[in-house]
Amino acid sequence: MSSRIFSFVGGAVGVWRVETILPVIGEPLAEVPRLDVVNGSLSALPEHSKWMLRGIKSNERYVTRDEKDELKAHQPQLGRPAATCAALIPIRKTASWWELPQDERRSILEERSRHIKTGLKYLPAIARSLHHCRDLGEPESFDFLTWFEYAPADAPAFEELAADLRATEEWQYVEREVDIRLSRTPA
Amino acid sequence: MSSRIFSFVGGAVGVWRVETILPVIGEPLAEVPRLDVVNGSLSALPEHSKWMLRGIKSNERYVTRDEKDELKAHQPQLGRPAATCAALIPIRKTASWWELPQDERRSILEERSRHIKTGLKYLPAIARSLHHCRDLGEPESFDFLTWFEYAPADAPAFEELAADLRATEEWQYVEREVDIRLSRTPA
Repeated sequence: MSSRIFSFVGGAVGVWRVETILPVIGEPLAEVPRLDVVNGSLSALPEHSKWMLRGIKSNERYVTRDEKDELKAHQPQLGRPAATCAALIPIRKTASWWELPQDERRSILEERSRHIKTGLKYLPAIARSLHHCRDLGEPESFDFLTWFEYAPADAPAFEELAADLRATEEWQYVEREVDIRLSRTPA
Repeated sequence: MSSRIFSFVGGAVGVWRVETILPVIGEPLAEVPRLDVVNGSLSALPEHSKWMLRGIKSNERYVTRDEKDELKAHQPQLGRPAATCAALIPIRKTASWWELPQDERRSILEERSRHIKTGLKYLPAIARSLHHCRDLGEPESFDFLTWFEYAPADAPAFEELAADLRATEEWQYVEREVDIRLSRTPA
């Protein structure tokens, strides 16, 4: 049975070859050659690895029924053979974001920053999976880990998506962000 | 520095004497004489204790700005000397609840079940603290632990509050609930 928890291990093994690890805002993550994506929670950092990020798939926090139905109709599964490019983007938001009530966070995230609509625009090209870290324990290094998968031909679309989100009002609340790009090694 | 995580330990020690532990829906919790409320996460079940429930204080999931301001204006602190009665109510909601999009959960919780307004009605008599468990790890026995504190004279009001919430549409999504009543022993 699959777990809602995923561990992203930066080290020497894994099918994902690390192309770049760029600190966008705040503290960077150490360079590693490979990323291993493990379903479940690991009790300790595996040998020869430098870091491990954990996240849990959870209920939706902002999406309405109409948005959920539209996402469901268009979003692809992870693991498509042609989707040999991936990005792992861990972010942490400011304390002031978490202090906002639900309606104000929804308003910034969607009504003013169009986060959900922007993601929809790039479906089905870019598959996406969101993992929450903030309430897994304390302290956690990030609040969210977002995983994206796409074909090399859709790489320009992914750059556009990332740039669109980083230009939003929502992103003014991001105090740490690292951008990890990956490519799948042949089996 | 205080942690967002709290551990509620059912066992032989703690300032809270357990009066009753009633299973409301689903599996019960073992009888214990005392409850110890510990700030932080314990790595193992302490000696002479029978169970431990952990929860993390988190951002608000449904409350709007107006509701937040009203709550803030009226809600008392925990630990008032006269509030010698407490209740710890762990609940778990069904998978179908967690599958609902945000707008439908808000609509059931507040527009149709008046959960936030019902809580406001009993302020400042009944102090309340919500702890989330669902995304702390997997599997967790409960989704939420709610802690209430009140003076003996307000016990009838607390019974009314608990009955009001249990009669709501929201509570049809509760699949496990235990009701633990406590009284603070003299220092």
